[in-house]
Amino acid sequence: MYQLTIKPRFLETDALGHINHTVLPVWLEDGREPIFLLFMPELNVKNWNLILAKLEISYKKQIYFGTPVELRTYLKKIGNASMTVRQEIWQNKEICAVGEVTNIHFDHQAQKAMPIPKHIRQELEKHLYKPA
Amino acid sequence: MYQLTIKPRFLETDALGHINHTVLPVWLEDGREPIFLLFMPELNVKNWNLILAKLEISYKKQIYFGTPVELRTYLKKIGNASMTVRQEIWQNKEICAVGEVTNIHFDHQAQKAMPIPKHIRQELEKHLYKPA
Amino acid sequence: MYQLTIKPRFLETDALGHINHTVLPVWLEDGREPIFLLFMPELNVKNWNLILAKLEISYKKQIYFGTPVELRTYLKKIGNASMTVRQEIWQNKEICAVGEVTNIHFDHQAQKAMPIPKHIRQELEKHLYKPA
Amino acid sequence: MYQLTIKPRFLETDALGHINHTVLPVWLEDGREPIFLLFMPELNVKNWNLILAKLEISYKKQIYFGTPVELRTYLKKIGNASMTVRQEIWQNKEICAVGEVTNIHFDHQAQKAMPIPKHIRQELEKHLYKPA
Repeated sequence: MYQLTIKPRFLETDALGHINHTVLPVWLEDGREPIFLLFMPELNVKNWNLILAKLEISYKKQIYFGTPVELRTYLKKIGNASMTVRQEIWQNKEICAVGEVTNIHFDHQAQKAMPIPKHIRQELEKHLYKPA
Repeated sequence: MYQLTIKPRFLETDALGHINHTVLPVWLEDGREPIFLLFMPELNVKNWNLILAKLEISYKKQIYFGTPVELRTYLKKIGNASMTVRQEIWQNKEICAVGEVTNIHFDHQAQKAMPIPKHIRQELEKHLYKPA
Repeated sequence: MYQLTIKPRFLETDALGHINHTVLPVWLEDGREPIFLLFMPELNVKNWNLILAKLEISYKKQIYFGTPVELRTYLKKIGNASMTVRQEIWQNKEICAVGEVTNIHFDHQAQKAMPIPKHIRQELEKHLYKPA
Repeated sequence: MYQLTIKPRFLETDALGHINHTVLPVWLEDGREPIFLLFMPELNVKNWNLILAKLEISYKKQIYFGTPVELRTYLKKIGNASMTVRQEIWQNKEICAVGEVTNIHFDHQAQKAMPIPKHIRQELEKHLYKPA
């Protein structure tokens, strides 16, 4: 599991008094940075090799400003050229949202999917999701 | 079908030169405004009666700054107290992303789901999605 | 004057029930697009030749979701290589905010300011601000 | 001086490869949270008592993704009912932007400015800006 603590920003609230749902994809992207670093150790945007193919978020509880949020990021499935990342957003010891993101390892020049290299796969496997 | 034309904003791009994936939920929310208006004709946030339970986006093609985007919003399923909205994002006559959003008609005071009123249901049914 | 009508987005509100102040720079950037187009008719980010040097916003009235906003963009000052843009945000016939943005015409390759070409200057002069 | 370290988010970049200028007001708001806490120890949005009257940012250097940013927040001027906050954004030991924000201590119910209480003023004075 990769962990990230996020302090909600005031502007991330909306007029309903909670964090607006469109903010969660932003936090989730932030929580996947350790994975980006595995694929692109220098985070060089000119050699970016991941594509986001699918994003899915289930909203379970409202999230509020004023209390830190804990983001837990797991690998749910590691395929040949793609992976599914599971991300949980916790606040006040309750799970508030669950995200699932499918990323593809992609060669932008050749415009095709590339197998995930073995050393990255081994690293990712340390963070596999095991349902309780 | 509800239609909305959106002009991508420069800040919505990211360093990969395309529209960042976290922007799409923002556009989708914008495209659902006609539905919000059915449930809350005055858009009064103090009587907001819709909850977003699930968001799902499939990213098919990159979207770029400089060309308008067309957003098509359909009802995919209208349940007793909930509905699933299908939204398509088009640019240059190509479908670039498909979103699915599940909303629940919700009484915040009683903290429970409420049936969708008949007159709203009838209006929503005019916008049902019919796969080609 | 360049004019743009903007429909505030729900997520642009914050928990105080109004549009969060950080949204205004976003709208202002959107309102300057006709100026970007003068300098870069193809809006090609690889040849971007404007730098934002300074941004100043005076907040006069709260802005709300549910009512369109009108954005008026003027040239306040056109210098040799720079210009100051004045932008007004109106809602319900009241001026809610005034922005001033200083842009520099910039050659990214040579890393230096460039004079504003005559044909662009002439076009900009049609939009000069004349205080009432 | 109040200090905050911010990790730029990927989506905060734009197609020019740097952090988009509209992101800075967001970071600055984040950096002022210790000040919000002085005025509203419970950060309760229903009793929010600060208004942002003016925002000014000078952009000096480009800011990039991949390197943390340090935010330094000072009180530049403490008036009777208002204060001017100076904020500096540093990256790689260089000052990249300077912000100035004018806030007013405001009674929303009475709709008028209120003097800054003495105990808050004393706390703020510990963070006064002293130019080098």
